[in-house]
Amino acid sequence: MKPPAALQELVESLRALPGVGPKSAQRIAFHLLQHDRPGALRLSRSLAHAAEHMKRCAMCNSFTEADLCDICAPGASARRDATQLCVVETPADLAMMEQTHAYRGLYFVLMGRISPLDGIGPKEVGVDRLLARAGDGVVREVVLATNFTHEGEATAHYLAEALKARGLKVTRLARGVPVGGELEYVDPGTIAHAFQDRRDT
Amino acid sequence: MKPPAALQELVESLRALPGVGPKSAQRIAFHLLQHDRPGALRLSRSLAHAAEHMKRCAMCNSFTEADLCDICAPGASARRDATQLCVVETPADLAMMEQTHAYRGLYFVLMGRISPLDGIGPKEVGVDRLLARAGDGVVREVVLATNFTHEGEATAHYLAEALKARGLKVTRLARGVPVGGELEYVDPGTIAHAFQDRRDT
Repeated sequence: MKPPAALQELVESLRALPGVGPKSAQRIAFHLLQHDRPGALRLSRSLAHAAEHMKRCAMCNSFTEADLCDICAPGASARRDATQLCVVETPADLAMMEQTHAYRGLYFVLMGRISPLDGIGPKEVGVDRLLARAGDGVVREVVLATNFTHEGEATAHYLAEALKARGLKVTRLARGVPVGGELEYVDPGTIAHAFQDRRDT
Repeated sequence: MKPPAALQELVESLRALPGVGPKSAQRIAFHLLQHDRPGALRLSRSLAHAAEHMKRCAMCNSFTEADLCDICAPGASARRDATQLCVVETPADLAMMEQTHAYRGLYFVLMGRISPLDGIGPKEVGVDRLLARAGDGVVREVVLATNFTHEGEATAHYLAEALKARGLKVTRLARGVPVGGELEYVDPGTIAHAFQDRRDT
């Protein structure tokens, strides 16, 4: 006996979610059908709407429903420092930078990081578009805010070389002890960097 | 700056998935929008279709698109032993029982297990419907195949009392050492049960 076709199809299409295998797909399907059909219908609508209407911002490459995102749109970008361009991996990182209220420039979102093992090279993260954007004659400093993981660091290194070759000033977020961090519980690598990058007080 | 409305709505509606918090909802949304829009659209369609068309089988309570599921439909159930009724927690457990090819009777799916701490009592798992189904005058033996977890065992205990009070024969799947199991690596509770339920060879 096979499960009903509609259930089978739902279980199979749930596999599109990252990290969901056959067992969890089945568990999710049962949960939604048994306990949350309104939630399933809402999810169905928002998936269709987002998949059909979400575009990339022509300036910063982040997700947007219009041609330009809320930051790059003329009215908003006029209030920002167009000489600074901050490079982040994802729209979530951009949102986090915004929350700091420490940065007033513009952004470029890579939508990933260079990761040769996963087949993601400079082309896949839009390095060409970043170089064109940073070379608009207005941008003077590019702030690299990729993650401090192996791949994020390698991406930052690659971008720094390419951008410096075009005569741009390139900076990177500082590494160091996090706010509230106790030295005893911070890893030695971080402390070593914090020592290297120590600053006058 | 807020994320685009369509993205925000997608992230929020992904929270309907069990175990998905705000961070993973965002991660899933970015993944689908960036790497798998066809998958997102397919998932949207199958969610809507399943949420709208999936019903409960009038006989066994499992999911079905028709009034009766493929097992309880007259043509199929005629080839089965209607004197045996196997009680399982979920449609997935039913599918597992079917895969064994060891059982030829009919089923009743609780769609859960009694769990007072989660507010799930006998009423929520359809004990009334099970008692009505088992008391049809044809069923003679009820095989309890709920899980061997605390809650599954408690559910089996409760059902056994209620069914035996109605004069039905009630059996439970045997506990014991799994096929291929090595005593050294099996937990002592299981071995104790396997010893208690030892059988003549």
